[in-house]
Amino acid sequence: MGQVHSDGVGQYHTGANIKAWVVLNPEAARAAARESDRRYQAGEPLSQIDGMPVGIKDLIETKDMPTQMGSPAYEGSFPKRDSALVRALRDAGAIILGKTVTTALGFLDPGPTTNAFDPQRTPGGSSSGSGAAVGAKMVPVAIGSQLVGSVLRPASFNANWALKPTFGGINRGERLGYSQSHVGIHAGCAEDMWATTMEIVTRVGGDPGHPGVYGELTAPPPQRPKRLAVLETEGWPRLDSASREAFESLLERLQTAGVQIIRRADLSLLDLLEQSIATATANMLRLISWEQRWSLENLVEQHPGTLGPSLIRQLESGRNVTLETFREDLALRDLARQRMEALAPYCDALISPASCGPAPRFDVAKQTAFPTGDVSFSCVSSYLGTPAVAAPLLAVEGMPFGVQIMGQAHEDERVTAYARWMAEAARHANQV
Amino acid sequence: MGQVHSDGVGQYHTGANIKAWVVLNPEAARAAARESDRRYQAGEPLSQIDGMPVGIKDLIETKDMPTQMGSPAYEGSFPKRDSALVRALRDAGAIILGKTVTTALGFLDPGPTTNAFDPQRTPGGSSSGSGAAVGAKMVPVAIGSQLVGSVLRPASFNANWALKPTFGGINRGERLGYSQSHVGIHAGCAEDMWATTMEIVTRVGGDPGHPGVYGELTAPPPQRPKRLAVLETEGWPRLDSASREAFESLLERLQTAGVQIIRRADLSLLDLLEQSIATATANMLRLISWEQRWSLENLVEQHPGTLGPSLIRQLESGRNVTLETFREDLALRDLARQRMEALAPYCDALISPASCGPAPRFDVAKQTAFPTGDVSFSCVSSYLGTPAVAAPLLAVEGMPFGVQIMGQAHEDERVTAYARWMAEAARHANQV
Repeated sequence: MGQVHSDGVGQYHTGANIKAWVVLNPEAARAAARESDRRYQAGEPLSQIDGMPVGIKDLIETKDMPTQMGSPAYEGSFPKRDSALVRALRDAGAIILGKTVTTALGFLDPGPTTNAFDPQRTPGGSSSGSGAAVGAKMVPVAIGSQLVGSVLRPASFNANWALKPTFGGINRGERLGYSQSHVGIHAGCAEDMWATTMEIVTRVGGDPGHPGVYGELTAPPPQRPKRLAVLETEGWPRLDSASREAFESLLERLQTAGVQIIRRADLSLLDLLEQSIATATANMLRLISWEQRWSLENLVEQHPGTLGPSLIRQLESGRNVTLETFREDLALRDLARQRMEALAPYCDALISPASCGPAPRFDVAKQTAFPTGDVSFSCVSSYLGTPAVAAPLLAVEGMPFGVQIMGQAHEDERVTAYARWMAEAARHANQV
Repeated sequence: MGQVHSDGVGQYHTGANIKAWVVLNPEAARAAARESDRRYQAGEPLSQIDGMPVGIKDLIETKDMPTQMGSPAYEGSFPKRDSALVRALRDAGAIILGKTVTTALGFLDPGPTTNAFDPQRTPGGSSSGSGAAVGAKMVPVAIGSQLVGSVLRPASFNANWALKPTFGGINRGERLGYSQSHVGIHAGCAEDMWATTMEIVTRVGGDPGHPGVYGELTAPPPQRPKRLAVLETEGWPRLDSASREAFESLLERLQTAGVQIIRRADLSLLDLLEQSIATATANMLRLISWEQRWSLENLVEQHPGTLGPSLIRQLESGRNVTLETFREDLALRDLARQRMEALAPYCDALISPASCGPAPRFDVAKQTAFPTGDVSFSCVSSYLGTPAVAAPLLAVEGMPFGVQIMGQAHEDERVTAYARWMAEAARHANQV
């Protein structure tokens, strides 16, 4: 590990060439670790995560490292203040080790990070560095964020546990500019994922006006769901056959273990939800393009030529969105959320792949509109504002392939308990 | 008018010693006015507010002027980008004349501005400069913002029209950090107030995820309400007798004009709402103190000694608030909002004074916890997230005393139409 580099994007730190880190702060981390040691020796740790090293996605402000957002427009940007969640982590004794690579402004234009399991494959995005750093076991926990599918997809691709909480569940601090962005937690195990979530939430809560993630400080014990509904999303027809087989095989094992599996054909209300999310990706990208238009216009004016192709497409889309069509898109999203709520009496949670198969190779992905991987499965919980946990339950082509459990709003703890139980149930199977 | 001063707070511009402006930008304003002239000569104005000079509260970012937020911690801060609404105003051809004085960070510690009608009295806050600049007819429109009562109260004290829209109704841009802050519009007449609102909203909408203020581009014609409920709030017992008489006299005239006036004793549901807002000020300040705690902690760390007494009180309050008590305060606010909604079938709108009497003298106000005036009447619509229009209908002690009309969420246009009708109905009476 080197010194703090504040000289801009391009100074990535390597770990088996994974390039997960933009900036590391080893001296401050060592000093913080010594403080933590002293607290433990005195029998007075600050929390259950005292001493835990954490990576912070480079969209999120830290007082002792620059925040450059993966964009040349923010090269050298150093706000010198902690975002709410970073302050909470420090107050809990966690060690802020460095900033992890994000795609440009958290959108689709990738950084240099590679997958933790294969240097020829994408780590996913936008939380590319957080996903890969946890997957490669450089840190037990890293903070990510998700606007579309930016926590769950990299978690699936790098064999992480991850929580994308209920909308507003973890305080976004200064990153409040979009109506469906979320902070999410990547971790090597469910216990760390949950503990980190709650140590943050008890200190700084959720977003302004939101109650924050509900639950105990320690992870809920594994719990068997009675009924799980399978969510196909618009990604189902695009699943390769090996991934579909792996997922169907998991469903069979769950049924064998006594879980009722509800399919789209079994329940009209589930089919209605599927209809509402059949074009969720396009609806979402259009909706976001309006919300980000004015800030992208400012960037283009002040830093011409710094936007990558996906952001240029978003800006052009945003210029064509009117307030009327934005309102329609909001109403469509509300309708989808109502259809999700209507399922509450019929199933305990919904289950689906956390990504459209394992991480694609760079040479394949870059031919598509999604160079960090297809967003279809991972985006649904952003659209619905519901909590989802990605768990590293499957493997395909020798690569990790995550499964996600999605619940009703504010059921973060419950879906974590279900995911833990599924991880135990999957232990005898085709797992990573 | 002088040059742009970017050398920090303390460089206030005078207008009959009102000190409404932190910074003026006359060269840029003249250049923009010449451009506007050319557009009109070509018969191609950009909008109905093309060429209109506007003041911008110094909490809101402007690319060509510093944004110092009334706080020494932000002295010289110059983000060089336009907030969403400023961009919208420029795109509509409006002329951004300067930045108006805000209390420190939009809270209660006052700046140097005096009332437009009496240099010995407060202009109200936190939109002190916007309220006074419009009251003194320096500009037809100025942008303010309201967390507690910061638009409606200065409007009342300076004889402005003002709209505090439905929560989320006007895009707050970077100022999203609180769950009940709003952008508001101060204007010399209802037509300009409404036109400015809609020219902004059609271009940049409301907050992310919000549909924005609904309505036509031009002000709705005056409309007589059938039933108005009188809202007493916790301020009623503190109204001086002259103010109460002036208000009651207005109610009598409205009754004579055929409006049914509903009092607290007439309707149990109205009494329930009053109970829910009986300690709204304290609930709100506690709720806000949690939401602002982490950013105030950052400020104290980076800029020790820069917080005024009201912000220090808020920080200390925030340190004592827990996530549990915050959640209770949110639930209490939700309950109050439900009680407000329950009134929809019983009255067209609610009416009350827009402030607890006319502007108090500085020597009186500074003895209280509210040196920019009692917030009780003006804060209710922030707590409820409902739209309210302040109209300059009354005078007490030769000073302006505003009346507010509050409607259900998204009824911004309707309450504007009612307020316009009331202004006509009040024309033969005790008006400013």
